[in-house]
Amino acid sequence: MKRMKCTVSYDGTSFAGYQVQPGKRTVQRVIEDALTKLHKGAEVKITASGRTDAGVHAKGQVIHFDTPLEIPEDRWTIALNALLPADVAVTRTEWTSDTFHARFDTSGKEYRYFVQRRAQRDPFQRNYASLYPYKLDVSAIRKAIPFLIGEFDFTSFCSAKTEVEDKVRRITSIDVKEDGDLLIFSFKGNGFLYNMVRILTGTLLAVGNGQLPADEIPAILAAKDRTKAGKTAPPQGLYLWKVFYENEGK
Amino acid sequence: MKRMKCTVSYDGTSFAGYQVQPGKRTVQRVIEDALTKLHKGAEVKITASGRTDAGVHAKGQVIHFDTPLEIPEDRWTIALNALLPADVAVTRTEWTSDTFHARFDTSGKEYRYFVQRRAQRDPFQRNYASLYPYKLDVSAIRKAIPFLIGEFDFTSFCSAKTEVEDKVRRITSIDVKEDGDLLIFSFKGNGFLYNMVRILTGTLLAVGNGQLPADEIPAILAAKDRTKAGKTAPPQGLYLWKVFYENEGK
Repeated sequence: MKRMKCTVSYDGTSFAGYQVQPGKRTVQRVIEDALTKLHKGAEVKITASGRTDAGVHAKGQVIHFDTPLEIPEDRWTIALNALLPADVAVTRTEWTSDTFHARFDTSGKEYRYFVQRRAQRDPFQRNYASLYPYKLDVSAIRKAIPFLIGEFDFTSFCSAKTEVEDKVRRITSIDVKEDGDLLIFSFKGNGFLYNMVRILTGTLLAVGNGQLPADEIPAILAAKDRTKAGKTAPPQGLYLWKVFYENEGK
Repeated sequence: MKRMKCTVSYDGTSFAGYQVQPGKRTVQRVIEDALTKLHKGAEVKITASGRTDAGVHAKGQVIHFDTPLEIPEDRWTIALNALLPADVAVTRTEWTSDTFHARFDTSGKEYRYFVQRRAQRDPFQRNYASLYPYKLDVSAIRKAIPFLIGEFDFTSFCSAKTEVEDKVRRITSIDVKEDGDLLIFSFKGNGFLYNMVRILTGTLLAVGNGQLPADEIPAILAAKDRTKAGKTAPPQGLYLWKVFYENEGK
């Protein structure tokens, strides 16, 4: 058996999220189905860097699995894409060490969030960006960002349903870029809690809209109270963009 | 009764084309349904600049209809978008003269065709661009373009099923632009025959791939034989981009 590391891109629109759920079409299920077909019916289980919710996309999700198949490294991409549905594609396949773990070895992640600023909805972006038809001052957003960079307890910025105990995470950078009518947020950090990127985005949009002063952010963090931060931005603007492995296989 | 001119954008993915067909979800049907709702059940018929096929998109389709409703011009956009499904949106509404006709008054159209050049498919472009994983020399395409500019009988460049008698059309410009891994063709002309843009694209791609010399184009036009031109490129890369009305309402 050898361990394969696999980078996967998917359009989350028609999936009930990443993780297998009985009776639902999920990303994990369609990838495991493709692998099982490739292994002539022998069940193959995959492990991802983390879950994504229904409607959330991935440009660079990473998974690993073990296989006895002697397919050359670069042929795996072609073999898997031939078996996967059109809304999932493998972008990179590489042999890795037997101890590599797609979830535990993660050193960081990048998420992006796409907001479309226009008065009327755009049929072409309905599943790929979140429409924001209200006033938005990007310079106010830029003022709020530095308050979020660093290591904090992000209890105020995660779903009340978050199950992990330790809610301390380190955000290393937040960038915001304008591209036509799109506003693109990039969040990098050592880890993100449940709904954290969507709540960060919702809070920064509230700042940009003038509902919340930028310098309120430290008080929101200190409150450790989900109700103090902004709304959870909708799933369709969110992309798991890249997963980092600094100490891969060590 | 007053006549309303309406610019419409739609994602063609989930439509069986523009024109009403029994039992099928079409763009015309969903717009007429929305208008009928707005008119409290009174049937409203619309007329478009022309049809689009299943899977083909529109950024700037134009329609007209007559209405007794006294809604201010700019409120029509909001009223209609509230009733239309997410894959269709009105982008502009304006009162026009009673003699304006969305089809007969057209002075020209622009179509765009999006080709994505990469080895493996991209889940995010599967419905919005046509994947081209083969060798493509854009400079050869640029050499072929001048042979297509002007007034010609485009019998070789339309579907054998084309019903119109007169196949003479004038192409005023063809541009090709590279944007990341996308190759974007823009075709402008006084009118386009059935499948004409998709066959022009397929033929230019054959030139770019080296299957067809650029200077063969005049012979293909002269042959008036569909089998001499390239393949019909798939529908999902095609967009009705803009409809021109030089002599609007005259």
